[in-house]
Parts: sequence; structure tokens; C-alpha cells
Amino acid sequence: LKNICFINGDFIPFQEASLKINDLAILRAYGIFDFFRTQNRRPLFIDDHLNRFIHSATHLNLHVPYSKDQMKGLISELLIRNDTLYHEFAFRLLLTGGFTEDGYTPGNPNLIIICEQYNPAPEKHFSEGIKLITHNFVRELAHIKTINYITPISLMPKIKEAGALDVLYHKDGLISEVSRSNFFIVKDSKIITSDAHILKGITRSKLLAIAREGFEVQEGNLFINDLLFADEAFITGTTKKVMPVVKIDDKIIGNGVPGPVVKELLSRFKAIEDNN
Amino acid sequence: LKNICFINGDFIPFQEASLKINDLAILRAYGIFDFFRTQNRRPLFIDDHLNRFIHSATHLNLHVPYSKDQMKGLISELLIRNDTLYHEFAFRLLLTGGFTEDGYTPGNPNLIIICEQYNPAPEKHFSEGIKLITHNFVRELAHIKTINYITPISLMPKIKEAGALDVLYHKDGLISEVSRSNFFIVKDSKIITSDAHILKGITRSKLLAIAREGFEVQEGNLFINDLLFADEAFITGTTKKVMPVVKIDDKIIGNGVPGPVVKELLSRFKAIEDNN
Repeated sequence: LKNICFINGDFIPFQEASLKINDLAILRAYGIFDFFRTQNRRPLFIDDHLNRFIHSATHLNLHVPYSKDQMKGLISELLIRNDTLYHEFAFRLLLTGGFTEDGYTPGNPNLIIICEQYNPAPEKHFSEGIKLITHNFVRELAHIKTINYITPISLMPKIKEAGALDVLYHKDGLISEVSRSNFFIVKDSKIITSDAHILKGITRSKLLAIAREGFEVQEGNLFINDLLFADEAFITGTTKKVMPVVKIDDKIIGNGVPGPVVKELLSRFKAIEDNN
Repeated sequence: LKNICFINGDFIPFQEASLKINDLAILRAYGIFDFFRTQNRRPLFIDDHLNRFIHSATHLNLHVPYSKDQMKGLISELLIRNDTLYHEFAFRLLLTGGFTEDGYTPGNPNLIIICEQYNPAPEKHFSEGIKLITHNFVRELAHIKTINYITPISLMPKIKEAGALDVLYHKDGLISEVSRSNFFIVKDSKIITSDAHILKGITRSKLLAIAREGFEVQEGNLFINDLLFADEAFITGTTKKVMPVVKIDDKIIGNGVPGPVVKELLSRFKAIEDNN
């Protein structure tokens, strides 16, 4: 059985899916994407993801060649075609600048939908927490989900060497986000998250709604110096869910183990997922 | 007759060349490139371009699967195979992060060499000069030639609306570069070019060598405010050569026509080209 993906109107085996090399994603990194998963074999938070996908496309002057409802239909069709392959699924929606005549000017966008196996994060990351390193960097066009991950991928050897899972960006001390997730700290039972130069994550917005039922919540500037006084820290994302951070560079957060607030928030987030 | 390109060991028609969609350039914009042209049907400044290509690859932990001499051989072979198609040629060397297993981790790099027709810039751009607009931006990993052009391509409608040809980047007033060329001003017969957060262009280095024979040259910080006092301005690049800039946003540079210094430098640069 072959994994089936969707590319420009056709359902074809993923291993046979290709783009001509004059696509502007290949020549000029011009493209946007979104990524979501299923829970109980149904797409999770799909409206939020499709809305953000369209928002990203609009910002790059890219026309999405299908309506939201049509895209939902394509996703359902992929779920049917790949039904027996996986227990849960991850979807990657990708829109590129299309085939270019002159190596620079966008053509008609190419739409790709990849349907993969959903690989949950290791349980250990939740039970023990993870480590991050910091890097002085701010993402270009941070509010849209471009395909550009050059900096964090080039940092992979450094991240691994430090025994870390990912990289926390700050610009001269002002924290923005982790390479593929949003960042939070807990201080005196208050939940604080940066809102400067970030991609507003779907999980982030769900988490904020949960947190407001029982906690004080603050969206605003968060600085590297604030980490010194944090009781807990965590990140949110589609695969990361609500994941404890127990070490940042050489600084141990709180007691160096996942704290009560992040455990409580993860538990409440899982309850929402399970209602999907 | 079909245009032939090189991709991962094969010489194939450009129109049939494609990459599987799990290449990291498509999924994560992970790739570098270089671009050069022929003069008198021979590659121009090829050693400089190949050295920079290897430098860019190294910075992204990408192994170039051919030696410099082997790449020269591939380029010669492409010149022979495309011999009757064009009078002069442009080459695009592209190295991607390769096919990824998990959508993030690089695989074995894919090497592509595209051999196109060289399209010179319109004569009018040299005789009348061009206009730029400014944008507060600094390129990520500016010292290497990544494939990332998301910001300038997304600005194309704004550039066109302003009747400009391209965009000049500055960060809070400190000038770096134009989207695909380097920037210079002339003040009291002194030639000044920024060296902060730039890709060090091959044409830039040739131009500096020429300029030092007869002019005072300064590499250093150049600010938007300095434009007010510039006698002339120009940009350098593989296709732009030495191209006069006569207007930046609403500010007319000098007399609004190409000045004597840029004309002299272009003439001397052409003499070097003709010796190729």
C-alpha cells in the first residue's frame, strides 16, 4: 500500500510526487505551509489551521487555488485513501510560488497536501521535560508560516551537542519563540508568554484560553533575564502539545523537573483534544 | 533542441527536471546557490563563484558532492550540450538539503546546475539609471547565498508601484545591500560601499579592485542619511554589472542622471569582462 498525497489536482503516491525545478520554492524559498494532525482520526483544530494557511498565503500575494471547504474535502479524501496505513495522521499543507519564467517572478501557486503518519513526541519529553539553547535571532516575517527554517536547521549540530531539543530565539534579550513552538513561563502562578515577533500558534491560542480559566495570564514582552526568576517554563505546538522546559542553556528552570502548573495545563489540553 | 541541465549525476532536459517533494529546499527552504554568466562564451569569474558556492554550502553543513574541478567539468559539458541554443549563457548552481525522512533533518544534498540563456540588463538602465525603494530589513545569514528571497519577492508589487527596479535594505538607517546586488555611493570622488550584513558580491570585489586604481575607496558603515549628500550611487552584480542609481524613494541622487564616476567604472569593468 502506498502513501497518497495531493499535488495540483492529482492524488498520487507520495514517493512519486515531485516539483519541476523551476518552482519558486526551490529557486527562491518562496512558499508557505501549515501542519496539523488528527486526534481520534479526525483533523484537530482544522479551521484554525486553514485560516492561518490562507492568511500566510495572502501575505505573500499567493492565491490559494481551493476554497476552505474544498480543502477540507481534499483532506477527507486523503484520510480515506490512506485509511489503513496509520492510526493517526499528520497533514502538511504547502503552497509554493509556482513555476517561474525568469527565476524570480511568481507563477501560479502549486498546492501540495502531504498526509503522513503522526509521530507523537516521546513520553519522556513530557515526564522529564526538555532542554533548549538560546540564539540571538528573530524570524523574518514572523507572523506568517513561511517554509524558511535555514537558521534552526543549520544550528542542529550545536543543539545536539548541547543535549538540547530545540532553540529559543531572542533579539538582544527580548524572547520571541522556539523554532517550531511558542514559549511560556510560569511565575508565582502567573502564566506569561511573549507576543513580540512570533507566529501565533494554534496550540498557543488554545492553551491561553485554557489558562485563563484559573490562572492569571499575561501576553507581552518576555526577556532572557526573566528566566532567572521563572518557576516553570514550557512550549506549545502541534506535536509538542504542552511540553515542560527544565533547562535553558546552563540555567535550570525551577527545580529542574516539570512543575505542577504545566502538568495541570497539559492535562486540561489533553481533555480538549480527546473531545475532538 | 532542448535545454539540458544537470541534476544529481544526470544530464536531462530542463523541462523534465524535478525534485521529489520531500526535498528540504521545498519543505524547509534549506538550500544555497550561486549564479554566474559567460562572456565570449566562457564562464566569467568562475573560480570566485565556485569558491563562494562551497563557502555557502559549508556554512549550512552541506557537503558538495563534486570537487571544484569536477564542477568546472560539468559546466563545460553543459556549454557543449547547449552550444547551439544561446549566444551567451547564465548558470545557476543549486545545492539543497536533500531528501528528508522526518521533514526537518537534512539528507544527502541534491546538486542542480541550470544552464540558461543570459539575458543582459536593458541598455536603458545603464544610460538613464534606475530607481530603488528602501525597506527596513536585514538578510538572515547575509554572508552566505541562501535561496531565501521571501521578503523582496513579497515586496514586488510595492516596488513596481513605486516605478522602482529593486529594494535597498537598511536596518534602522544602516544600509546593507540591495536584494540581489551590492550598493555604493560616490562623494567628492570617493567611492564608499557598505560592508555591514552583506553578501560580498563577486562583481563588488572586482569593482573595488578597479576603483582603487584612481579613486579613494572606503568600505564601512553607510547610512540612509548619507544618501542626501551623495554625488552618485550605483549597484553591482552579475547581471547589473555597474548600474547607476539616480533615485531612492523620493530622493534624487546628484543630478538625477548617471554621473562621470559610475560611467568611468562601468567602462573599466567592461574592459575586464572583455578580456575573459
